[in-house]
Amino acid sequence: MVYLTRLEHFNAAHKLYNPNWSKEQNEAVFGVCANENWHGHNFELFVTVKGEVDADTGFLMDVKQLSKLIQEKVIKHLDHKNLNLDVPFLAGKMCSTENLAMGIWEQLVPHLPAHVQLHCVKLYETPRIYVEYFG
Amino acid sequence: MVYLTRLEHFNAAHKLYNPNWSKEQNEAVFGVCANENWHGHNFELFVTVKGEVDADTGFLMDVKQLSKLIQEKVIKHLDHKNLNLDVPFLAGKMCSTENLAMGIWEQLVPHLPAHVQLHCVKLYETPRIYVEYFG
Amino acid sequence: MVYLTRLEHFNAAHKLYNPNWSKEQNEAVFGVCANENWHGHNFELFVTVKGEVDADTGFLMDVKQLSKLIQEKVIKHLDHKNLNLDVPFLAGKMCSTENLAMGIWEQLVPHLPAHVQLHCVKLYETPRIYVEYFG
Amino acid sequence: MVYLTRLEHFNAAHKLYNPNWSKEQNEAVFGVCANENWHGHNFELFVTVKGEVDADTGFLMDVKQLSKLIQEKVIKHLDHKNLNLDVPFLAGKMCSTENLAMGIWEQLVPHLPAHVQLHCVKLYETPRIYVEYFG
Amino acid sequence: MVYLTRLEHFNAAHKLYNPNWSKEQNEAVFGVCANENWHGHNFELFVTVKGEVDADTGFLMDVKQLSKLIQEKVIKHLDHKNLNLDVPFLAGKMCSTENLAMGIWEQLVPHLPAHVQLHCVKLYETPRIYVEYFG
Amino acid sequence: MVYLTRLEHFNAAHKLYNPNWSKEQNEAVFGVCANENWHGHNFELFVTVKGEVDADTGFLMDVKQLSKLIQEKVIKHLDHKNLNLDVPFLAGKMCSTENLAMGIWEQLVPHLPAHVQLHCVKLYETPRIYVEYFG
Repeated sequence: MVYLTRLEHFNAAHKLYNPNWSKEQNEAVFGVCANENWHGHNFELFVTVKGEVDADTGFLMDVKQLSKLIQEKVIKHLDHKNLNLDVPFLAGKMCSTENLAMGIWEQLVPHLPAHVQLHCVKLYETPRIYVEYFG
Repeated sequence: MVYLTRLEHFNAAHKLYNPNWSKEQNEAVFGVCANENWHGHNFELFVTVKGEVDADTGFLMDVKQLSKLIQEKVIKHLDHKNLNLDVPFLAGKMCSTENLAMGIWEQLVPHLPAHVQLHCVKLYETPRIYVEYFG
Repeated sequence: MVYLTRLEHFNAAHKLYNPNWSKEQNEAVFGVCANENWHGHNFELFVTVKGEVDADTGFLMDVKQLSKLIQEKVIKHLDHKNLNLDVPFLAGKMCSTENLAMGIWEQLVPHLPAHVQLHCVKLYETPRIYVEYFG
Repeated sequence: MVYLTRLEHFNAAHKLYNPNWSKEQNEAVFGVCANENWHGHNFELFVTVKGEVDADTGFLMDVKQLSKLIQEKVIKHLDHKNLNLDVPFLAGKMCSTENLAMGIWEQLVPHLPAHVQLHCVKLYETPRIYVEYFG
Repeated sequence: MVYLTRLEHFNAAHKLYNPNWSKEQNEAVFGVCANENWHGHNFELFVTVKGEVDADTGFLMDVKQLSKLIQEKVIKHLDHKNLNLDVPFLAGKMCSTENLAMGIWEQLVPHLPAHVQLHCVKLYETPRIYVEYFG
Repeated sequence: MVYLTRLEHFNAAHKLYNPNWSKEQNEAVFGVCANENWHGHNFELFVTVKGEVDADTGFLMDVKQLSKLIQEKVIKHLDHKNLNLDVPFLAGKMCSTENLAMGIWEQLVPHLPAHVQLHCVKLYETPRIYVEYFG
């Protein structure tokens, strides 16, 4: 079994804001991340798949196909978007990096080729903060 | 003469949108960057100063003092903000990285110690795009 | 279960020197790392915690709180220090990156919130050498 | 148990080309990677070993010794080489990053000290694509 | 005046080999870089343009347009190619990074918008070696 | 004219301490950097040379020769050393990054080939602080 990882990039705006709480409570818990006018990030997304290598190609999976899949199922729905307002798969959830990583997993898992398993979604929110989700 | 550079970081939301144009014209020129719901970035800011070294300290300038100055005059006004809505020194200007770099220069230049000159503001909008301004 | 990682930084001096050995034996085993006058590094410290996400915040744990904990329990005891002379939790141990990573684990583990587990301490000694400890 | 990782670098040419297929089939499957005149990469190789720490040295294993081993058993056979033509341990295999990572594992595993286990070979083909092999 | 930089990436094979010299002389001068079977690199290309900012857009130049220009005039002629065999603008020249940077400059300079000047082509051959050309 | 840059690495200990001042004055000016027991850094050194390209080689200068020169004249005198105690060319000077960069310049400039000029010494003290010296 080998593991293959592809890095993709997207930019987005968001805020950390629980609509069931007062403005004061949001600011107490989330600090500057609760700014009502939004802030944003360059997200770096590492997607890792695992499985057996095909003898004819030497590939676990064509990495161009993996990149295209991530672009179509994830990046085009997140890039240059507002994560709180524009993303159906995050509707009703807090816009944390944790929930975003789990949401990305759900978008990818039904579309991978049958011989390949999704292993990890790793998402950098800043160069010093990242989340990993293994399903 | 030596050059000293300090890297600081901030996150912000913005959109590229000219209020004198129609929505269609904005989308034609700025594409996804014109998303009315905003997007955002992790900005990496390199500030370079130049001058002579002090014999007693070996410093052009104490880099902690430079960092504090950038924090107070720039970062606290930009970090976790909406560049179009929350930043007085960008009011009435297009929120491009070019204008942001030039605006940051203006915030810093009056506050540097007398023996030091501001040399360059270098601003990464994404890991693959940056702007430099030398005054 | 999700995994959250925070990167922190510290600078320190150390040497690799076993006080039970002769100078010659130390130099034979540790080479330039045994320089009696010390050398030093910029250490990059990645701390990973794991657990369940809170529905109200979307957080495994507030990353600012994690950063503060690492600062208070680890960084302020190591940053700009001599690892052989200034750090009680390394007293009597060889100052290797392996022992440093294990020592950092011990400093953090009693102070994490009850719903969160420490998963990994990853410590870069140089950009090309790192150690991981999983407890 | 601790994990120690060393990063080494090599440059090489290769092509993805199955000699049992027609040129057309190769181009259909491998695209530009099938260019008969070759292309190439800067490969970044992370080798991770694991085991117990020695009390006298504080080391899992001397990282200089690990580096030397990787240089002698791997890098000198791959650096500035053509992976399809010049590398005996890849003969008869497709020159994918997956097969290269697995081949590197085979070169290293017989030569590690008895108290240390090989844990992972991680190989970057580009800054955005990497493969991991755990044996 | 502001400076705008865009980073693009390509992979290619090459060798350093002067056809007017014997094999021995080539190996004496170029060492492993003269391997007749080629080697290769991941090249990182930074293109910097300079000029005045447009008041309506806040742009020196649309960075997407700059990226497209680099892709069309440079990357598609170099990516996954053999620099010695496949690249008309390098024909008859030594395939050094210096000559490659100067050749890239020549490809770009006629195609920039009239209000913008090419300032610098910076080309990384490896993460530790780069060349800059300012015309 | 082209510019060629080579990156080299060294680790060292130092402190910022003016022997003409009291301990209190040193701590007031240099803070934690004045720790009498030393601290240290991973220094990243970029050396840039400039000149004309040789038609037979395509080189400004053989980068392996540049690397060897930096190793012999600079790195072997600084790597795994105490900058205050072990480095003759820093004797009697404050051990700042500014003075270190200027000292490195002096070590290199007499040894470059006649057709090549030293352009810049750029020295990272941490990933967020660097100094440049152009002579």
